[in-house]
Amino acid sequence: MSDRQTAILEAATRCIARKGVRGLRVEELAAEAGVSTALIYYHFGDRAGLLRRTLEFINDRADRYTAAGVTPEGEPRAILERTLLLELQDEPSVRENSTAWGELRASAIFDPDLREQLGLSTRRWVEDIAELVKGVRPDASTDAAERLTALVEGLSERWLSGSITLERARELLRGGIALELGDAG
Amino acid sequence: MSDRQTAILEAATRCIARKGVRGLRVEELAAEAGVSTALIYYHFGDRAGLLRRTLEFINDRADRYTAAGVTPEGEPRAILERTLLLELQDEPSVRENSTAWGELRASAIFDPDLREQLGLSTRRWVEDIAELVKGVRPDASTDAAERLTALVEGLSERWLSGSITLERARELLRGGIALELGDAG
Repeated sequence: MSDRQTAILEAATRCIARKGVRGLRVEELAAEAGVSTALIYYHFGDRAGLLRRTLEFINDRADRYTAAGVTPEGEPRAILERTLLLELQDEPSVRENSTAWGELRASAIFDPDLREQLGLSTRRWVEDIAELVKGVRPDASTDAAERLTALVEGLSERWLSGSITLERARELLRGGIALELGDAG
Repeated sequence: MSDRQTAILEAATRCIARKGVRGLRVEELAAEAGVSTALIYYHFGDRAGLLRRTLEFINDRADRYTAAGVTPEGEPRAILERTLLLELQDEPSVRENSTAWGELRASAIFDPDLREQLGLSTRRWVEDIAELVKGVRPDASTDAAERLTALVEGLSERWLSGSITLERARELLRGGIALELGDAG
């Protein structure tokens, strides 16, 4: 992907996190990214294509910041917990990513064009977490990963919408991980 | 509350579930409810007031359809499970309620006016579920209720946005309840 394309997708994520999917205007995005609207249409086809690629971009970026949880010397249990907790951090990039992800999730209810990519991105995330869960409990089904990622989404939206503090969201997630792994105190 | 006010709030929920919070136009709402825009402003003050009351209305309606889970002869365990599973039903009123709730949750990230009411409604829901949890495990902290309701929100959004089936969402929720209550197979 060219630097220009990356710049457009970064700007699209920023715009969505600021004003929502329905508030995303291609003209504003062009201004934000410092490119022409023609270039946006050239690279992404239409609005639906742009939104699909933005979803993919958000997913890749989340992979990068949660990858910090996977240090070579870590225990599988600690790696899983760190990886999931990295989704709940008061960092501008995480806040922006999670806000945009929640927005795209909510918009997919109204916009069938988004559903396929969202389903794929969700599945990819669940599979990554399922692999980490299997590192701790090789006999685990994917239920644990599916539930933990859905819990991350639910807690993240509560935190971003001001219904709970970040500390509380992290505490609840840590408890959920312990329950799923069967090592709850 | 007058019938007219109820009609306006029902129509507002319908409009939000159809086009999102940002797609809600007071003129369209007036047409949908069969009243004048002046009457809407008279009863609800401004757009923020209308959204707050709509949140309250959605919460009250969810209380009513989940109350069907609480039959006098039920075991506490069955009552809790039924009540939570009633949030995941392919019924138009549940779909509409959950879609509008998710939309209001997502919008609160951008709209500080909504946060207080959303926080209150969330707390009320968590307290209701915490009471049911205590009926099964009197020593339980509110963590279980807080996690289970966040999981319902996460699973509900995945179902509504087409990332998982309703059956799968219900299965995952049942598993989550079993883990929280410590009676997982």
